[in-house]
Amino acid sequence: MSDTRIAMVHGSGGKATGELIANIFAKEFQNETLNQMEDSAVVDGSAKLAVTTDSFVVTPLIFRGGDIGRLAVCGTVNDLAMRGAVPKYLTCGFILEEGLSIETLRSVVHSMAETAREAGVAIVAGDTKVIEGNGGLYINTAGVGFVPEGAEISAEGAKDGDVILVSGTMGDHHACILSTRMSIETDVASDCAPLNGMVKELLDGGVRVHTLRDITRGGLGTVLKELAEASGTVFSLKDGLVPVTDRVRDFCGLLGLDPLYMGNEGKMAVIVPAEDAERALEIMRKNRYGRDAARIGSVRKANDDTEKGRLIMETAIGGKRYLDVLQGEGLPRIC
Amino acid sequence: MSDTRIAMVHGSGGKATGELIANIFAKEFQNETLNQMEDSAVVDGSAKLAVTTDSFVVTPLIFRGGDIGRLAVCGTVNDLAMRGAVPKYLTCGFILEEGLSIETLRSVVHSMAETAREAGVAIVAGDTKVIEGNGGLYINTAGVGFVPEGAEISAEGAKDGDVILVSGTMGDHHACILSTRMSIETDVASDCAPLNGMVKELLDGGVRVHTLRDITRGGLGTVLKELAEASGTVFSLKDGLVPVTDRVRDFCGLLGLDPLYMGNEGKMAVIVPAEDAERALEIMRKNRYGRDAARIGSVRKANDDTEKGRLIMETAIGGKRYLDVLQGEGLPRIC
Repeated sequence: MSDTRIAMVHGSGGKATGELIANIFAKEFQNETLNQMEDSAVVDGSAKLAVTTDSFVVTPLIFRGGDIGRLAVCGTVNDLAMRGAVPKYLTCGFILEEGLSIETLRSVVHSMAETAREAGVAIVAGDTKVIEGNGGLYINTAGVGFVPEGAEISAEGAKDGDVILVSGTMGDHHACILSTRMSIETDVASDCAPLNGMVKELLDGGVRVHTLRDITRGGLGTVLKELAEASGTVFSLKDGLVPVTDRVRDFCGLLGLDPLYMGNEGKMAVIVPAEDAERALEIMRKNRYGRDAARIGSVRKANDDTEKGRLIMETAIGGKRYLDVLQGEGLPRIC
Repeated sequence: MSDTRIAMVHGSGGKATGELIANIFAKEFQNETLNQMEDSAVVDGSAKLAVTTDSFVVTPLIFRGGDIGRLAVCGTVNDLAMRGAVPKYLTCGFILEEGLSIETLRSVVHSMAETAREAGVAIVAGDTKVIEGNGGLYINTAGVGFVPEGAEISAEGAKDGDVILVSGTMGDHHACILSTRMSIETDVASDCAPLNGMVKELLDGGVRVHTLRDITRGGLGTVLKELAEASGTVFSLKDGLVPVTDRVRDFCGLLGLDPLYMGNEGKMAVIVPAEDAERALEIMRKNRYGRDAARIGSVRKANDDTEKGRLIMETAIGGKRYLDVLQGEGLPRIC
């Protein structure tokens, strides 16, 4: 392909689309199924499936620690893993804006292929559309995973006496994207990572996982508030226990941001019975994406209906603050 | 929801996103799985799966005979059906441009829900992002279908002696979108329709279907050229047999368009052994989306390697024209 930029002709469905697919997508994503270029891929199934989808509109397209391609694979892989499923197949829908550099596209697609290999998933179907614009790129990934017999991890799984863990520091992806956009010099990198390996290690290690949730848009506060509501319990966090790197803390101080409501792309909340908490932490800390895993709070049953779904932050001096889901805009186009 | 237009805040992942999902998406798409609002949906599986994805960027969003929502459901349902699969689950990724009218979104989502019911598929997972813009809307749908034991419908299935059928008239969707955009007064409606019912009727009727392909972007010419190449055979069409309505023919005459390269959204090519052709036509013509089904050509084996993959149009007076896939731009944002 001699073109250097995407043009409307690449969306025709004819010759130019075929060349784009052959030269950019098929080369990187090649596997037996995709190579057949059928209307849909026929693949082996399983008795229980996990199915999910996510669109990615992050800007800038490439950032420290990742790019929109790595994000698109990790986001969907993680959504599958959060049900205890083994991620198997991904589909990719590309919407390309006219003017997009072919080099950028090539690099993003390469990164998707690498991340898919890391996560052990096959990209089995794809689609490409072109719209007018200024060189932007949107990616949708949908995913199918196999759910092992007996897996019962769900948003409503938290029980009285459970412990709340997080797999690492909060706010890195958010701080990375925002600082890049504001041209603030910092070396904060996105935490963008596939978490299915760590989930498998927890389950293989016999940890009785009640709930898993990846902490993306909306941040830890939003995620935990939703999980408290889904389970009808009370979640209590201890101030000072939520892990945040010094760099991100400084960045937050500067801009008045709260790490509890900042987006992440490679972190999860893990809710387990108290007896399993130490083992879970040990397992997570051995994984490259879980080195800063920490215990941040606990679950108790609600004393009455008004208490159900509360998320409480307890301060060191005994004060209490009720937390809600993210209000307001958050950071546009963070993922 | 009192808002009348989409704003960036609807993409925050916090409170406003939650309200949008509850008030617009969940209401229309409700089913037990989606209602759980988990990171991924857990659903029953099958030994063989068909998996596909498609993004939709059509403009205008609403047109005679359909809208982007109906298109998004039909496109993915049809891609699954083309492998002989029974479409089961859809995921929907919405990318909303700031300024999109909530009323338009509501109407599109309603149309998706209705079309999903018609096609017998459940929408089990979704995602919503908001970007800057001018009230546009992009939808990705990915789909999972169950492939029945023994189904062997594929792009390379065409064999010597087979007959090529199409399920109806060519160019309706293309003419509808283009005339709307050019403000040409016409009553041509899009043919946008789910074809899985007709495919099921063909298979249940014992027709030995070798190949199915829905005829979308790129048109019949592109589709048949690709199928001839995939099967390594020679496809011959007879001029005058490809069904086109008078209205679309007039429209094409006016603008110098060739119905063979115009997009459709509810039509398929069907390749079957000659002995099964009449029965297939009979079955298709009984279906509301197959009333104009017609036999348009035949398949023969290539005499040598240079002939493999040829698509030939034979004129009434014995002339021959070799057809290729669509060259050039086609119609931007037709689907």
